[in-house]
This record gives sequence, C-alpha cells and structure tokens, in this order.
Amino acid sequence: MKAAFYRGDRVVEAGAGESLPPGPGEVRLDVGFCGVCGTDMHIYHGHMDARVAKPQILGHEVSATVAALGDGVGGWSVGDRVAVRPLKFGDPVGFDRGHSHVGKNLKFIGIDLPGGMQSSWTVPAYTLHRLPESLSLEHGALIEPAAVACHDVRLGEVSRGETCVVIGGGPIGLLIALVAREKGARVIVSEPNEQRIELVRSLGFDAVNPISGNVVECVTELTSGGMADCVFEVSGSAPGVEVMTELAAVRGRIVMVAIHPQPKPVNLFRFFWSELRLIGARLYEERDFDEAIALAAAGRLMIDRLITDVRPLDEVGDAFAAIDANPDGIKTLIRCS
Amino acid sequence: MKAAFYRGDRVVEAGAGESLPPGPGEVRLDVGFCGVCGTDMHIYHGHMDARVAKPQILGHEVSATVAALGDGVGGWSVGDRVAVRPLKFGDPVGFDRGHSHVGKNLKFIGIDLPGGMQSSWTVPAYTLHRLPESLSLEHGALIEPAAVACHDVRLGEVSRGETCVVIGGGPIGLLIALVAREKGARVIVSEPNEQRIELVRSLGFDAVNPISGNVVECVTELTSGGMADCVFEVSGSAPGVEVMTELAAVRGRIVMVAIHPQPKPVNLFRFFWSELRLIGARLYEERDFDEAIALAAAGRLMIDRLITDVRPLDEVGDAFAAIDANPDGIKTLIRCS
Repeated sequence: MKAAFYRGDRVVEAGAGESLPPGPGEVRLDVGFCGVCGTDMHIYHGHMDARVAKPQILGHEVSATVAALGDGVGGWSVGDRVAVRPLKFGDPVGFDRGHSHVGKNLKFIGIDLPGGMQSSWTVPAYTLHRLPESLSLEHGALIEPAAVACHDVRLGEVSRGETCVVIGGGPIGLLIALVAREKGARVIVSEPNEQRIELVRSLGFDAVNPISGNVVECVTELTSGGMADCVFEVSGSAPGVEVMTELAAVRGRIVMVAIHPQPKPVNLFRFFWSELRLIGARLYEERDFDEAIALAAAGRLMIDRLITDVRPLDEVGDAFAAIDANPDGIKTLIRCS
Repeated sequence: MKAAFYRGDRVVEAGAGESLPPGPGEVRLDVGFCGVCGTDMHIYHGHMDARVAKPQILGHEVSATVAALGDGVGGWSVGDRVAVRPLKFGDPVGFDRGHSHVGKNLKFIGIDLPGGMQSSWTVPAYTLHRLPESLSLEHGALIEPAAVACHDVRLGEVSRGETCVVIGGGPIGLLIALVAREKGARVIVSEPNEQRIELVRSLGFDAVNPISGNVVECVTELTSGGMADCVFEVSGSAPGVEVMTELAAVRGRIVMVAIHPQPKPVNLFRFFWSELRLIGARLYEERDFDEAIALAAAGRLMIDRLITDVRPLDEVGDAFAAIDANPDGIKTLIRCS
C-alpha cells in the first residue's frame, strides 16, 4: 500500500506505507479521496515543523470505505462508505468543560498522528460518519471542510434575514457562505483574487475586492447602512482584522475562523461601543459533520464547483507544487484508492 | 441654584445654574448626590474635548428627589426618591436592532447633555428608577456604576460555581466582583495598587498584584489549572489585554468593559484555539438598574466601603483635584442638595 509522506522543506512524496490491522475499537479503511487543506500547505512550507513529526503521513479531509473491523466495533460493516472526523480525544483531564474538540489533550489526526493520504488507514471507529448513497466518495472528501463551515456558522448563530460578510473567499470562506445562505442569510464575500471573485459571483453571492474596492463602503451600500449581523474573518490577514470591526452592526458577531499566529491590533473600542462579540471557532463537533453530510447530500454545497483538481496518490508531490503555483484554485483532491 | 461646570483644561468649578421647568414628559429633580466617574476625570483632563461642549455641567451618577412633574408624566409624585439612568434615546433609525442603549442616536446625559452635578436638574421621566425606603440618597448615587457592573456580569453570563477574574480593581471592577459573587462565582481581582488590593481582600476576594506578582500563575494555582470561566478587562491597559486571553479557560468569556481608544494587539490565536469569546459591554439597560437597586437595597454591594469622600458642590474643584492626587481612592460623591 502507498502513502503520502511529508519529509520536510517542501517535500511531500508517495512511498510504501504499512497497513495496520485495526485494534479494539478501531476500523481499517480503504481511503477513497483525501482533500488538500490550507493546513497541509502550511506543513508543506515547514511552518508547522515544531508540531509535525517527520516523516508524517498528511491528510485529514477523507472519504473512505470500511475494510476491516477491530474488536468491539458495532454499527459498522465492511463496505460502508464514510467520512472521517479526524479527532482523537485524549484522556479527559476535566479542563475541557465538555468541549472535547478543543480539549487540551486532543490529537488531530493528520497533523499530530498519521493522516489519510494513504490507501489503507486505521482510525478509531468513533471518528466515522456514514455517507448516504447519493453522495459520491469524491464529494465525501469535502465533508470535513464543510463541517468546519457548519461549525463556524452555528457558533455565529446566523439566522434568517441576516446579512453576513465573509472575509476571504477560499475553500472555507466559500463553504461558510454556502452554509450561511442555507440559514436564510444574505452573504457578501470579500476576496482579493479576481478568479475567485468570479466563482463567488457565479455561486450567487455579492463580492467585493478589498484591494481595488472599499469593503466598508460596499457593505454600507448593500445594507443601506445596516451593516453585517455576522462577520467571518477567514483571511488570516491584518487588513481582515482591521476591517472586521468596521463591518459589524450594533451587537454584531465576528467569528474568528482564521489562524493568526501572531497577536494583531484589534479595535477594542468598537467592541465596547457597539457591544460587538468575537467568537473563536475551531474544528467541529459531531453534529457539524451530520449537518455537512445532509447539506452535501441535498446538493446545497455546490461541491463540483469547488473541486479544482483530482490527482492520483502517486502524483502527490506534483499536486502540492501545483497548488502552490495556482492561487486561483480552490480544492485539490488526492485519489488514494 | 448651583451647578458644577467643566470649563476645559482641568477646570471644574461651581457656578450659578438655571433651574429649567420640566417640559412634557420631563421631571425636575432636586439632586441629592452625584458620584464622580472615571469618565468625568477623562473630561476634566481634556481627553474628551472633541465630544464635550464647554462649559458643560458634568455628572451622571445621580440620586435625587422628584421636585416637579411636566405634562403627561404618570407614575411619579413630588417627593419620590430616584436614581437616574442617564440615557436620552434619539429618533429610532432602525440600526440599533432593539439595543437602544448602544444605538447610533443615543445621547449620554452628563457628557453630550447637561449632567447631574447641579442642585436642580430636569430630565426625561423615562430615565427614573425608584429607590426603596431602605436605600439612602448617598447610596443611591452608586446605583449607576452598579448598573454598569450588573450589565457586564449579565452579558458575561456568569453562573454559580464559576471562576471570574477581574482585571482592574477600581470602582467598576470592585462592583463587578461584588455582583459576580452574588451570582455564585468565585472572584479573583488583579490590581496594581496595594491600597486597593487591601480593600479587595477585606471584601473577601482573592487579589493579585500584576506588577509584583504573576497573574497567570496565581490564577492557575487558585483554580488548579482550570483557569477562568469569565474574565473582565476593566483596566484599559495593554498588559490587561495581553493577559486576558491567557486567563480564560476553554470556551471562556472575556467581557470588554474598559475603553481602549487605540487598537491594541490581541492574541487572536487563543480565541481560535480554545474557542474563547470576547463580549463588548457598554452602559446598561433598564433591568440592570432594577438589579443594581435590588442588590444595593439588600446591602450586598458594600457601598459604605466604596465611598472614599463626600464633598459639597461648592468644593467640586477641590474634589476633582483631590481625586487626581489620590490613586488609592474609590468613589467621591458631590453633595448637590
């Protein structure tokens, strides 16, 4: 069997892997597709070498078929089609207050533990979510990022008739826009890349380019001065942080989706003055996967429009280089079967 | 009748004022006491000259007795004892989303309009809250800052068994600690002034000095690593903003009470990683005054311990200078009757 190994310094390559028999409570999967995430690209660029062991098998956006069951695994059969929620919960330490997806002892599978870019992958059975018949394995690989979006929109408490602004129109930003629309919200996306703007508009959203345009003026005009009930900061950029507080209405919510490794200046006066709220959002919980699967199965996430490229596992190195060279792209999948 | 006028450049002085007969919907009050707020000191220092007309009558922490009723005022009688919620609501413009206390057309009485440091004061009847018999006019002057604290604790959703950290042990910080304790929370106060620390401890709270001690280590130890469910940033300082994200537990809330005129670096990664929330809190709503009055009347706010000084209106200039010279003090009242 084969796997995609990160070896450091922009080297990801296919190599011989080891198929592990499932232990108690585990399942072995035949992986269908594995998406390449922005986080995988950060690892590829060496930005997460302090956290990621080398060599490490990357990948956490996985669709698969159950191939073997370990002892004590109930509810699953060989041949079941699944998406994987790549979280391994540590020993409870009492400090996660029931929020195990952000608990201190959480291990993220595909970063802290070997991931899904391999033809045969063994994971805890509790990570599995069933894919309905109507959902292809190709589309199933988008369930993980869609669950991120469902989590973000849920924590943002987006409701019917509201206006949302999504700062950053990459894969997660687009999925947030799509999920927020399903809640009945109007969505405006701020994105500097013109190819992505075209995609945003073709999906039926308003779009504004923060380089050539003025996001605050645009949102002011589109909302007749009402501004946004909920802002999603997905860009990870200083201008995104600067503008997010300007876009929010009185008592507006700002969901912090992006990873900002360094502290950035925030207009705290705006939080005080208009009683804004900043809501940190990370990963997902079980129900977010359930919702993502339901939306994808209903054809509401336009997944075909989000898939830029599909490459076989043997070409994983080329695939990573191609992503780096194409800022217009959205989602590349690695075919692992 | 007399009033305290801000004339600019650290000059506040008593002078002859004008008693205004109440118009329709208004009442004329005989003011009992008016507290001096940190905001009044900012005005005194000239920091708010862009907003504050000169001369302006300061003061918004008022207890009073109803002296005359304008046309159409029901529910009040001459002689009723009241606290004043100093908010004048503007024409609704549709953008305050029902949150008129932070609406765009709000006028704050005592900053944007003449305040309560005068023997005779005319205000809209809707600003009045009845003081119970058991509450003195002196204590009644603390209702306004206590309502700020009730609002902050309510927005922080503090509940029984939780741990709170209050960054800044001035009047608002102390009142937040007292109100949070009433919710059943354990409270730790971070405050650099040793005299204030003594007061904090004598009120039954844990205290830590962020200059001579380490707040994060102290809270870690006192909570056995569990950290704070709710943090109140009341200091307005950069170190306060730096430490607030370190003190919060997983999914912890941080209430932004202080005014930070300039953007400050915020550890946004912590918001993402532990799904923290930042909750902007400003002023109060009607129910916060009701709660403050109930707590004060029940003797739960230790108001006698918070009053540092009481001066007659004639000495208002000296009172402001004395506050400036005494960083240990908590609350000075101006006797306006």
